[in-house]
Amino acid sequence: MKLLDVETPAVLVDLPRLQRNIQRMADMARAAGVSLRPHTKTHKLPGIAHWQAEAGAGGITVAKVSEAEVMAASGLTDIFIANEIVVPSKARRLAALARRVRMSVGVDSREGADALSRVAVEEGVELRVLIEVNSGLNRCGVLPGAPVLELARYIKGLPGLVLEGIFTHGGHAYSATTFEQRDGIGLSEGQVMVETAGMLASQGIHLERVSVGSTPTARAASSVSGVTEVRPGNYVFYDAMQVGLGVATWDDCALRVTATVISRPDPYRAVVDAGSKVLGSDRGGNLSAVRGYGHVVEYPQGLLARLSEEHGVITFDQSSETPHIGDRITIIPGHACPVANLANHVYLVDGDRVEATWPVLGRGRVE
Amino acid sequence: MKLLDVETPAVLVDLPRLQRNIQRMADMARAAGVSLRPHTKTHKLPGIAHWQAEAGAGGITVAKVSEAEVMAASGLTDIFIANEIVVPSKARRLAALARRVRMSVGVDSREGADALSRVAVEEGVELRVLIEVNSGLNRCGVLPGAPVLELARYIKGLPGLVLEGIFTHGGHAYSATTFEQRDGIGLSEGQVMVETAGMLASQGIHLERVSVGSTPTARAASSVSGVTEVRPGNYVFYDAMQVGLGVATWDDCALRVTATVISRPDPYRAVVDAGSKVLGSDRGGNLSAVRGYGHVVEYPQGLLARLSEEHGVITFDQSSETPHIGDRITIIPGHACPVANLANHVYLVDGDRVEATWPVLGRGRVE
Repeated sequence: MKLLDVETPAVLVDLPRLQRNIQRMADMARAAGVSLRPHTKTHKLPGIAHWQAEAGAGGITVAKVSEAEVMAASGLTDIFIANEIVVPSKARRLAALARRVRMSVGVDSREGADALSRVAVEEGVELRVLIEVNSGLNRCGVLPGAPVLELARYIKGLPGLVLEGIFTHGGHAYSATTFEQRDGIGLSEGQVMVETAGMLASQGIHLERVSVGSTPTARAASSVSGVTEVRPGNYVFYDAMQVGLGVATWDDCALRVTATVISRPDPYRAVVDAGSKVLGSDRGGNLSAVRGYGHVVEYPQGLLARLSEEHGVITFDQSSETPHIGDRITIIPGHACPVANLANHVYLVDGDRVEATWPVLGRGRVE
Repeated sequence: MKLLDVETPAVLVDLPRLQRNIQRMADMARAAGVSLRPHTKTHKLPGIAHWQAEAGAGGITVAKVSEAEVMAASGLTDIFIANEIVVPSKARRLAALARRVRMSVGVDSREGADALSRVAVEEGVELRVLIEVNSGLNRCGVLPGAPVLELARYIKGLPGLVLEGIFTHGGHAYSATTFEQRDGIGLSEGQVMVETAGMLASQGIHLERVSVGSTPTARAASSVSGVTEVRPGNYVFYDAMQVGLGVATWDDCALRVTATVISRPDPYRAVVDAGSKVLGSDRGGNLSAVRGYGHVVEYPQGLLARLSEEHGVITFDQSSETPHIGDRITIIPGHACPVANLANHVYLVDGDRVEATWPVLGRGRVE
């Protein structure tokens, strides 16, 4: 199938770029001496997760039980849910998975630990847990140091749980306004975790995993001695946000949306058939890093200024070359992670050929 | 099935509220003497479209060919694609539908009209078209008055096309900051269309349909004599944006997301398992109309301050009652239209009972 035979809008994954991104991050982790456990929420595609595993990832990361179920069903065997499971029904689903594959899960409260422990005992399994540490994102997680030690001791006293490590996500790096700030967040993310692990070790609690990371902080955080694992997700695709953060170039961006110009109401405006229902409307924490809602590959001077659900409005200045009605354009989205989740399937492309059409098996799994 | 047995996050549609919303808009249109042609992009659920049709809608509106295909397959028989179709492959899909059901489609350029005409002739069908008029949204559409007349004459000269009417979408009402401004946009939307239709009539071009509308402008635009049809979409569900615009109350909001508190890192913050991958991150054109990313029904004093993909962060002030880990809360999203599209299925609920689980058949149809 030729790329031009794909109806628009459609989500394309450029295979050579994807494979290069997968390989480079695997090489980076190997060089830093840390395990790579990529977050698969970015693509929700078991096929890509297998390619990541083959390139050297020790295991994968997911955001929820339903994603873990999809990945386990496809043959992935080492899955970390980097999130809290606090209700018995989901803990039972986790326990069912833990009988078949190597599962681990986050915890950041006594209540959560109690819930997991009760189900582990009832179901006769051991559940591996990692304490989530708040290294500055201020989302979930306990503060570093003493609060982690306190929760670790509590977990050690509960039946059915194995305390395997600690993890954090330096997502506040997405709000960084300079490269130095971004790398500073990565370094501090690693240091905070290593110090906390050291404090626990001094109290006799030795951790197998000290897990960090996000795509923008992966390199800096991995460089900290004592970090054992890194969990970037977005790097398989990259996007306008990552380019704005200086983590990737436009040429690295593997996820692209193909769209058609459907209206040219005036010389300064072109409307395409890709809106927020395929591109998402997420521009990230640092709006100054991303120009518009995405990068128009063929018309970089154009500004993807507005999205409605099924329309994207690209504006041009007076001197610009502009596209005609019926022309196809390619958009690199502001944030790639919501995009695969918005499509029933993605097209894997190499140049102007479509090599495969893959259903996004993990998508829409809101539970 | 009990509502409490549904895993979170999940998208709920409250049946009594939904049915009340459907009935009220049908009554409003009947009283105004206009046809109601609801936009089904809001729910993408053929079942709800049938309820809308039964309540008196003359036909339905969709945003794209793929949605029309889903709706036609489910037995809907009068479908308007309120968007431009400019490529032959999609025009052929439109023609195939037009053999089975009453189809109409938007057009706003000679190039688009040519493409439709060529396919209509090749396929031996007549395609009904409506010219899109830009009444102020500045997205697609030709300007009112003379430009519409010029395109109408051009279309009249093309084989295979029937010029059925003109349509507009007063979506700029979503940026209104006062109720007067909102209704003013609705009135002006109707007036501009009626004046343009009058100009065409004076030149011998009589239109069957003068179609307007959006949920916030439906009432005002329908009140203009000469308007024949109104196309609100969001009103089946309503959301925080519509409440902010004074179009609905919280009690009217039929689409709700049920979520679980998974983390309580400090007394002023609760984290739930609903993020942008179920709630969307769209807050609309007038940020001052919507507080946070949605309304927390049980804790209206809480502010849904941040969303990441699978987390929602609710902040509280010192004196607030706050939820515990494991508690369920209900969120009315900022914008309901992206939400059904994010879920594989929705739960139709009445009080604490789940009456049905419906797959969102039109979702993820990005092409």
